[in-house]
Amino acid sequence: MFLSERSKYAENPLEEDNYIADNLDKKGRHVIRLNRGDPAVYFPTPDYIKDAYVNAIKDGKTHYTEPIGALELREAIANRYKRMFNLKVDAESITITQGVSEALYILNAALVNKNDHAIVFAPYYTQYMPYIKLAGGKPYILDYKENDGWSIDTDELEKHIRALKKKRSIRYMLLTNPNNPTGTVLDKKVLKEVVGIANEHDLLLVSDEIYDEIVYNGAKFTSIAQLAKGMPYVILNGASKAYDATGFRIGYMLTPENDEKSEALKRKFAQFAAVRVSANTPAEYAIAEGINNVKEHNKALKNMVKQIESRVNLSTKLLNENEFLETVRPNGAYYILPRVNLKALDISTDKEFTDKFLEEEYVQLSRGSGFGAKSHVRIVALPPKEILEAAITRLNDFCKKHAK
Amino acid sequence: MFLSERSKYAENPLEEDNYIADNLDKKGRHVIRLNRGDPAVYFPTPDYIKDAYVNAIKDGKTHYTEPIGALELREAIANRYKRMFNLKVDAESITITQGVSEALYILNAALVNKNDHAIVFAPYYTQYMPYIKLAGGKPYILDYKENDGWSIDTDELEKHIRALKKKRSIRYMLLTNPNNPTGTVLDKKVLKEVVGIANEHDLLLVSDEIYDEIVYNGAKFTSIAQLAKGMPYVILNGASKAYDATGFRIGYMLTPENDEKSEALKRKFAQFAAVRVSANTPAEYAIAEGINNVKEHNKALKNMVKQIESRVNLSTKLLNENEFLETVRPNGAYYILPRVNLKALDISTDKEFTDKFLEEEYVQLSRGSGFGAKSHVRIVALPPKEILEAAITRLNDFCKKHAK
Repeated sequence: MFLSERSKYAENPLEEDNYIADNLDKKGRHVIRLNRGDPAVYFPTPDYIKDAYVNAIKDGKTHYTEPIGALELREAIANRYKRMFNLKVDAESITITQGVSEALYILNAALVNKNDHAIVFAPYYTQYMPYIKLAGGKPYILDYKENDGWSIDTDELEKHIRALKKKRSIRYMLLTNPNNPTGTVLDKKVLKEVVGIANEHDLLLVSDEIYDEIVYNGAKFTSIAQLAKGMPYVILNGASKAYDATGFRIGYMLTPENDEKSEALKRKFAQFAAVRVSANTPAEYAIAEGINNVKEHNKALKNMVKQIESRVNLSTKLLNENEFLETVRPNGAYYILPRVNLKALDISTDKEFTDKFLEEEYVQLSRGSGFGAKSHVRIVALPPKEILEAAITRLNDFCKKHAK
Repeated sequence: MFLSERSKYAENPLEEDNYIADNLDKKGRHVIRLNRGDPAVYFPTPDYIKDAYVNAIKDGKTHYTEPIGALELREAIANRYKRMFNLKVDAESITITQGVSEALYILNAALVNKNDHAIVFAPYYTQYMPYIKLAGGKPYILDYKENDGWSIDTDELEKHIRALKKKRSIRYMLLTNPNNPTGTVLDKKVLKEVVGIANEHDLLLVSDEIYDEIVYNGAKFTSIAQLAKGMPYVILNGASKAYDATGFRIGYMLTPENDEKSEALKRKFAQFAAVRVSANTPAEYAIAEGINNVKEHNKALKNMVKQIESRVNLSTKLLNENEFLETVRPNGAYYILPRVNLKALDISTDKEFTDKFLEEEYVQLSRGSGFGAKSHVRIVALPPKEILEAAITRLNDFCKKHAK
């Protein structure tokens, strides 16, 4: 084989499932795609951010920035964390990345040696896997508790870590809050216990908080920035979701503490950024202005979250009418992950379920196995209500049709 | 150590040299920086490209594109290669990357196993090194021939490859044409021989042609697309230089052939792109339009290249007045790499030379050792003539002052 050994881990299995839908499209079938979590497709990026982007280009912000990111953007992010979480963080503790994707690359490249482990909870964002594996690492997968609203059993977590520590090298523990694909917003009390466990076991805590402002149904988001004081931790975040700007590819890594490990991480993250010279310059300036314009941001965000809330809740209600599904109601992000009672159907796997549903009803969902959640399907509840309603009606009919 | 073993290779040594200049700036000294090759700082990105970027944003092109890149951009690039090199290449053979940097990441991640080798010619672009080493590989460094205008001795190359093949795994051979840091445009005859050697030894040829349109002094650029027929090869290119759009971060990988290896590479490059979801969307559309608008491009390019030519030639002329330097005249890109006769000076290394020159004369050059070219210094000849003249006059005085 002339490709590298690691190259087999370069994949996005859910993207690769697209070929069936693409073929249907080619045949003139209109496929409802509820598989890609791109808010900017359904909610136009707010004008004040687009204007800021345009102004940056017109102002000639088309050269490289410093590798770690434009100071204006890093200062805006520092202010955001001060404002939202009362966190004191300086611009030097922030590394701008090309989306959270690049942050995941840097995180794993900087920390993971061959056969090292990273603790990830399932269901997980699909793309955590290739980044860990491309670095030579192995995900050590623990479960969120579906029957407890996809929360974390902290007693079980501690037991696992005690057992693990003896025999494996765990480089970090990764949380996703709010969660993709479950839409769970972790409870502050649970998070506090998780932070305590990480601290006690000297385990680097990494929190992917990209959906931190897409929260509803009265839920309250807690950042680990509010809890993890005096211990090293890394927050992954970006502009894609809260600022509805997926195509800008602006992410960031936040390492607010000043202990020895945090300082080493900051230096190393900056060095990884320097290897690739610069992120997209005018997008950096656009997001800096987007973050600083609190009034416009709050207005646009409130409108988007209100619509997401009503789309998610309508979808959940319709899914609950389906006797073959069990659905935990999401309070954040815009994903719903119903469990499918496959035993009651003439279908054996979630992959077979999503393939058949697509072929028969022209609706594309994502198979749960792509998120470490077998027997589940993921629905992206971003499209307008009539589309969601049509799609879920077809889903409910499809299940009845395939009942044993 | 809690960081990974590979993480020590994450560095940009020349960026890290900036601290002296930054400190001088803080003290209120005005430093002339001739160390960063960013044309967009000195030549504003052309209006027609900025307008296209603005239009893409206004049109709502702010969501993800397909991972491999927007079809419009890949088709524009295919047309560019048809137009410039009469190459027939389809859009599926092109992967859009976040700058050539990401192309280098993907190339090495896809091909290089631990202790594999990649043939690189010195002087080389500094950042080839971290990408090879982060993938676990080792650069096998051969020399361009300074006394032959930094060309390649193909007899010596073939001898090396014959010797190497027995004991090491060589994954690819990398050319940079036109070259950074030497400004050399490789002769067609030499290139043809190199292509023949690669073909004979079944060695994947990779050509970084990012400066393909920054060519002057009557030199003629040859793409390996014109020579490497019926054998697998990869071209790395992007919008940063020819389209004067460094901060857009639009690069691409071109794999035009259809043999088994080329097809495997295309699939794998696309999968690596899918891991990180998307490049910057509006920048992709901007560059698509930039490439398609041949008339405006030629106008802007001609003007920029003419000015670069005159700045490089003036600088070379002034450098030739310095008896302590020997300078090969560049015919492409915008770098000049004089050899410093350190034996005639009270300075022992190129690093000491550039540090002292910066501290005493407030001009920042890059040390040749950062490019695998000890006893040389690199000058970026992009600033206006009066700045280049002032800087090189100081350089010439500095050498006289430090003569033994």
